Amino acid sequence: MNNIRKIGVFTSGGDSPGMNAAIRSVVRTCAYLKVECIGIYRGYQGMIEGDFKPMGARSVNNIINKGGTILKSARCQEFRTKEGRQKAYDNLIAAGIDAFVVIGGDGSFTGAMIFNQEFDFPVIGIPGTIDNDIFGTTFTLGFDTALNTVVEAIDKIRDTASSHNRLFFVEVMGRDVGHIALNAGVGAGAEEILIPEENLGRERLLESLKRSKESGKSSSIVIVAEGDKTGKNIFELKDYVEDNFPDYDVRVSVLGHMQRGGSPSCYDRVLASRMGVKAVESLLEGKTNLMVGIQDNEIILTPINKAIKGHTKIDKELIRVSDIMSI
Amino acid sequence: MNNIRKIGVFTSGGDSPGMNAAIRSVVRTCAYLKVECIGIYRGYQGMIEGDFKPMGARSVNNIINKGGTILKSARCQEFRTKEGRQKAYDNLIAAGIDAFVVIGGDGSFTGAMIFNQEFDFPVIGIPGTIDNDIFGTTFTLGFDTALNTVVEAIDKIRDTASSHNRLFFVEVMGRDVGHIALNAGVGAGAEEILIPEENLGRERLLESLKRSKESGKSSSIVIVAEGDKTGKNIFELKDYVEDNFPDYDVRVSVLGHMQRGGSPSCYDRVLASRMGVKAVESLLEGKTNLMVGIQDNEIILTPINKAIKGHTKIDKELIRVSDIMSI
Amino acid sequence: MNNIRKIGVFTSGGDSPGMNAAIRSVVRTCAYLKVECIGIYRGYQGMIEGDFKPMGARSVNNIINKGGTILKSARCQEFRTKEGRQKAYDNLIAAGIDAFVVIGGDGSFTGAMIFNQEFDFPVIGIPGTIDNDIFGTTFTLGFDTALNTVVEAIDKIRDTASSHNRLFFVEVMGRDVGHIALNAGVGAGAEEILIPEENLGRERLLESLKRSKESGKSSSIVIVAEGDKTGKNIFELKDYVEDNFPDYDVRVSVLGHMQRGGSPSCYDRVLASRMGVKAVESLLEGKTNLMVGIQDNEIILTPINKAIKGHTKIDKELIRVSDIMSI
Amino acid sequence: MNNIRKIGVFTSGGDSPGMNAAIRSVVRTCAYLKVECIGIYRGYQGMIEGDFKPMGARSVNNIINKGGTILKSARCQEFRTKEGRQKAYDNLIAAGIDAFVVIGGDGSFTGAMIFNQEFDFPVIGIPGTIDNDIFGTTFTLGFDTALNTVVEAIDKIRDTASSHNRLFFVEVMGRDVGHIALNAGVGAGAEEILIPEENLGRERLLESLKRSKESGKSSSIVIVAEGDKTGKNIFELKDYVEDNFPDYDVRVSVLGHMQRGGSPSCYDRVLASRMGVKAVESLLEGKTNLMVGIQDNEIILTPINKAIKGHTKIDKELIRVSDIMSI
Repeated sequence: MNNIRKIGVFTSGGDSPGMNAAIRSVVRTCAYLKVECIGIYRGYQGMIEGDFKPMGARSVNNIINKGGTILKSARCQEFRTKEGRQKAYDNLIAAGIDAFVVIGGDGSFTGAMIFNQEFDFPVIGIPGTIDNDIFGTTFTLGFDTALNTVVEAIDKIRDTASSHNRLFFVEVMGRDVGHIALNAGVGAGAEEILIPEENLGRERLLESLKRSKESGKSSSIVIVAEGDKTGKNIFELKDYVEDNFPDYDVRVSVLGHMQRGGSPSCYDRVLASRMGVKAVESLLEGKTNLMVGIQDNEIILTPINKAIKGHTKIDKELIRVSDIMSI
Repeated sequence: MNNIRKIGVFTSGGDSPGMNAAIRSVVRTCAYLKVECIGIYRGYQGMIEGDFKPMGARSVNNIINKGGTILKSARCQEFRTKEGRQKAYDNLIAAGIDAFVVIGGDGSFTGAMIFNQEFDFPVIGIPGTIDNDIFGTTFTLGFDTALNTVVEAIDKIRDTASSHNRLFFVEVMGRDVGHIALNAGVGAGAEEILIPEENLGRERLLESLKRSKESGKSSSIVIVAEGDKTGKNIFELKDYVEDNFPDYDVRVSVLGHMQRGGSPSCYDRVLASRMGVKAVESLLEGKTNLMVGIQDNEIILTPINKAIKGHTKIDKELIRVSDIMSI
Repeated sequence: MNNIRKIGVFTSGGDSPGMNAAIRSVVRTCAYLKVECIGIYRGYQGMIEGDFKPMGARSVNNIINKGGTILKSARCQEFRTKEGRQKAYDNLIAAGIDAFVVIGGDGSFTGAMIFNQEFDFPVIGIPGTIDNDIFGTTFTLGFDTALNTVVEAIDKIRDTASSHNRLFFVEVMGRDVGHIALNAGVGAGAEEILIPEENLGRERLLESLKRSKESGKSSSIVIVAEGDKTGKNIFELKDYVEDNFPDYDVRVSVLGHMQRGGSPSCYDRVLASRMGVKAVESLLEGKTNLMVGIQDNEIILTPINKAIKGHTKIDKELIRVSDIMSI
Repeated sequence: MNNIRKIGVFTSGGDSPGMNAAIRSVVRTCAYLKVECIGIYRGYQGMIEGDFKPMGARSVNNIINKGGTILKSARCQEFRTKEGRQKAYDNLIAAGIDAFVVIGGDGSFTGAMIFNQEFDFPVIGIPGTIDNDIFGTTFTLGFDTALNTVVEAIDKIRDTASSHNRLFFVEVMGRDVGHIALNAGVGAGAEEILIPEENLGRERLLESLKRSKESGKSSSIVIVAEGDKTGKNIFELKDYVEDNFPDYDVRVSVLGHMQRGGSPSCYDRVLASRMGVKAVESLLEGKTNLMVGIQDNEIILTPINKAIKGHTKIDKELIRVSDIMSI
């Protein structure tokens, strides 16, 4: 047992469903293990401004099912400077905070790692992002919920896809990675899935749509990840397809930020609860500079610098499954 | 009692949630009243092609909760010609169909009215459209469901609206009318609602957003009906706001066709069931050229030409409610 | 204009979805019209205990989509005594509250009416109950949401009703009235709907189930309102049917309080918003002892004693629609 | 490569969400790999009756998002006899079916294993059950969806849990295993979770509820697995608690078969798609008597007799997480 008596917790970067469940878990595990817990508002920004609030077991009642984050989130330029981090450190020390749990993604972890190096301050990360692009965990917090949000939206679109010769293009999140597009695409039964990791060209898309039509499908759904480069953007791609396929009428949906919100799925809530327990326990065991993850349904720890450097690869097997399913 | 022995039913134009429930109701009411019922596929197109199928009570099992339409829908140019309508009429007569129930919107009713005038063929309309722009009924079939779809999407967006200085623009359906935008906007607690019926100019939008921010709101949601003319389109409007409001980050969602699909709400299912009964009974009572509607929770009939000509006005009281709510 | 400067608002009795939206509307309308608004916690109980809190426009942010009530609700025996009401009155006067808006049902309105008579204190009611059993409004706040909750549950049950010879009994709320059962029953496509207003006997249920089976249905869903007297309770009824129908396997669901919760439907949110505006405006116009309701899509006022005495009748047309649909 | 040219597929036992997605995957993988696929209706019953239907890629359009099973399911006594199985075998041979994929649980796999032993007929199983009680796979098909259904129901119940001194007992599925209760309990933030694997006695429940109240919780939710033996049943347990806790008002929900239905989650759809591909490919590679499962996010194979004999244990870590969370 080490000397940790007061743990800070905050959310940082783009929010994701399950962040509140993770906050609740950290707070309640602290209460259970009789260490104090301090909520830090708006991530590193609030750390720099000293925007802290003590949190007891009852302060996180009825949030497990809420999207967003009660601690707010923000991106913070100032924390990228040595001066900013020094202010943050001074505030933490002044408040008697001995360690923190950061819930966020890549960028948030980088900040935590640098902070740890500079001040030898114990930090543990919980991967909260819908993008599922963190190494060291099979699933990030919020990914499962985002997938359900996307397939529910596409299910509704498919209902109306009864007329002939209609194509639906649906843009989903994923600037650098196609995990949402690929998984939700398989889940929604999409005919085509366009992801940043693979750019097979616009001609191939046309061919595929042609084949799809010849195989007797009266309508098709194409999932386009935000960061896909098949077209300049989804609207330009729509124009290209309509120009080359005059009998097709292409309709576009841009799902946007609804993918980041919504009540978390049971999976994300359970994952958040498990991760929060592990994060606090690890800090109390004197561990630091680690990220909590899930692998083979076990909660594990990964050095935070590996979580940052590594990037999950797109799943080749799932691409193949998608190809087979869209026959 | 008149001589109607066989009733055709079809869906036409853009589909809407509740169309299947209406088909089911027409089919089962026919079965109950011991007249035959024939499903006509793909609207007027199927009528011209003779794409008919007898439907019994069991053929509509388990569809009340399904979005879309099992009879498919289509828009049909050929029915706008005398020749097309003659073919359709010949097919109906050949199949022994004495009357039909058309489930659709404005354009579909116009077709039915002309057909009735030319061939003295009994027709009754059921207003199936998410736009709620039909005179003679307080609610069209599908409007209630579409509103729920929109507010659920915006609820998720609002969850993530925790960071400062963020604006969300959400495009909803409504080329000519703002009923979806206004009702869903009030239901979702939108700060601004831009509809085709009112164009107060882009400057007013900026002012309102400024006021909203000054009143302590950290984020705002703006609903933009498809047909709104405040900007050229939602992306151009985004650029305008960002140009004039440099500290704002505007995110866009285009909900698109998910608004036309989805499992119908209980209200739409009950409405469809009641309308289907009334449609069949009215035909059997010798009535024709009417649209079934709901007013003051009673099922009523309106001459179909009034339903077409009239257009529901935007609700001034609701605009005022919206203004008050977004204080 | 009269002298009302400070309005209290509270929720009372069983809660219903949309109560938060109504609170928000009352609070924001007060802010808009520049009168103060005081939230009273736990209904009449909090009034007696002086559990008050000033509410400004921002204090009701992000609640329009939440089930339950942020002001809590309670049933209060003490308010039934003269002494209790005197305490409540003294607290209101001490806090400078000139009038109140009560959001609740029958019992809550009776309390308000007596209070008004005793102290000549201005009161307006908003009908918040899922039961839809208030005279003077076509729909009570929460009814629409509760119906959607029930049909969504039954839709899932129906999915699994694929094996032969299986009956599902589903108990829904409604101790004295069958509005939920009847509407959700039609919406869910139930084969039988048992309501307190009609007791046709257990034999008729057996016959109907037999007919249903003979007509080719492999499974049937029976909705049973809580207050139905066909059996002693739903489990006794299950035993009776299984005894008389040995080849049937009856499965029971008791939906319970999930019907009172959940995010309100768009309809309930809009209704709540409109009712709240009208309630505050009416008080400011010097009106009192009235209930806000909706009729023919217009917000209207009804003397509160009529709302209490009258009870909505079960809709005979809808019973007929249900009979036809379950052919 | 072996000689398999025609593969049968069926669902058996209690249905679960994702079965349709699995059927679709088997059918489309067959189409993709150019082997024939035959749908067998109503499980072993249909096999005995020869209720077969050829299935092509288009015959499984638009089912990935549907609960239930388009091939129907049944329990079949006759297949437990040698004569029944002989009939089934004769029918398969007569139809030219070389192998089958069975989607179901424990009992269905036992049938398949015996059938394989008797007739040396190639069989592969896909674990379709909401109970998650199959060895050789971290998740069974439908478990994830069932968990979401339960937590959504309890979320609604929690909304209304605003009054003091109210307890909610919610019965969930699980006759022999508590996986649904435990996971959904953690996901829903339940205060107590009663499962068949642990019977700590009724006294401990009382104590826990007392502690919960003393810790400041105004309401509590208790999840009770069907097979829990703390009380004789949930209603008897309710009476016991009310007798010993006179100031508590206990409300009961019995969720029942809604847990088996509903549109599958994205996770279950992707899992089903992956499993179906693996099942067909394994048969074509000459493998037999195996069950497809998922472990560490990889699709793996387990001897079907191990899948049957083994039973997943309740997760001690998760019980601990639950204890910590309900502080």
